[in-house]
Amino acid sequence: MSSNESIMSKINQFRDDRNWRQFHNEKDLAISISIEASELLELFQWKSSTEVKDKKLSRIKEELADVLIYSYMMADNLDLDVEEIISEKLKLNEKKYPVDKAKNKNDKYTEL
Amino acid sequence: MSSNESIMSKINQFRDDRNWRQFHNEKDLAISISIEASELLELFQWKSSTEVKDKKLSRIKEELADVLIYSYMMADNLDLDVEEIISEKLKLNEKKYPVDKAKNKNDKYTEL
Amino acid sequence: MSSNESIMSKINQFRDDRNWRQFHNEKDLAISISIEASELLELFQWKSSTEVKDKKLSRIKEELADVLIYSYMMADNLDLDVEEIISEKLKLNEKKYPVDKAKNKNDKYTEL
Amino acid sequence: MSSNESIMSKINQFRDDRNWRQFHNEKDLAISISIEASELLELFQWKSSTEVKDKKLSRIKEELADVLIYSYMMADNLDLDVEEIISEKLKLNEKKYPVDKAKNKNDKYTEL
Repeated sequence: MSSNESIMSKINQFRDDRNWRQFHNEKDLAISISIEASELLELFQWKSSTEVKDKKLSRIKEELADVLIYSYMMADNLDLDVEEIISEKLKLNEKKYPVDKAKNKNDKYTEL
Repeated sequence: MSSNESIMSKINQFRDDRNWRQFHNEKDLAISISIEASELLELFQWKSSTEVKDKKLSRIKEELADVLIYSYMMADNLDLDVEEIISEKLKLNEKKYPVDKAKNKNDKYTEL
Repeated sequence: MSSNESIMSKINQFRDDRNWRQFHNEKDLAISISIEASELLELFQWKSSTEVKDKKLSRIKEELADVLIYSYMMADNLDLDVEEIISEKLKLNEKKYPVDKAKNKNDKYTEL
Repeated sequence: MSSNESIMSKINQFRDDRNWRQFHNEKDLAISISIEASELLELFQWKSSTEVKDKKLSRIKEELADVLIYSYMMADNLDLDVEEIISEKLKLNEKKYPVDKAKNKNDKYTEL
């Protein structure tokens, strides 16, 4: 079992112990990812990264982990391999953001 | 190198090829995770999971991958191990949601 | 003074009493609107509208008001008239969603 | 009819012409507010307020108007008066953020 499979099995154990798959349709998982992403963002509200990242590192860890846990659950629901979809998306992004156009630019691909 | 380290190194290669770390402060990464989570959620707007998950699986894959990519970047910025923070958060969640109280319940821990 | 101007002046009074304009740049206001929208959404997590709207009406009121307050602040920062930008956007939406194409459809305009 | 009632009636006209109330349950309206808030935020991704607010003012207007339109629809669905819920929330916020504690502070009320 790869380390990634082992993490997925811990996550599934957690939800199956509570019999939560009955609530875990993909729409509500997408809602949940969005809510947790927003709780992560809230740590930075009105502040700069440097003000926040040392003082609130343990909170950042927790909220970032929540985003990841729900994202892994969504992947598992849809039989997706986390590392595979990341690899495939990086390939798409390489086409949207070719190095010669995108280097040192903070613009969206539609504006490059 | 574990498969997870290998994914992280692909992600970092992608951003370093474009010299993007100059923009990748943690606040803007948190913003980006939130934006991508919202694009994932948009696929389900006005619809049920069952209406969406077959017809839009390739779009779901892409948006979920974007959430994961920015989450991994945030982890890398802060020297966090993705699998470790997930494991630690699951332990916290086990305390917030003890099996005997949370089984078959869709309430927040503050309302159990 | 219209009722809308009177609401705006209450909101501005609230932030000026606390000398908060120093923090209220438009980027952080956009972050704040997004965070409050997410807190509103959290009330519906794992549940249906009907389960939620009676039981949590007072919480819905509060979170919806927070979305509105930050939206009005953003409008005020940029010298925008709330009712005017709504009217203008409705006109744009009428073109994106012509009645004959959009009636009884829950699809995005790009898919009509 | 107050100007605010007049705006609400334009918004309702728009959705009733398309017979969209069948899709406009409160959960999906909350999702929609959150999606539009995120599209507003996306305009500021990787950038500062000053870089964005002049160059993208017309896009800001549109996205902010979308947040407001869905928020007004939610209010209308639940028979809430927009100005009333704002006034009531400002009163609550005055207690959470008393002037003497909150003045010149960018901390959450739980940390004041």
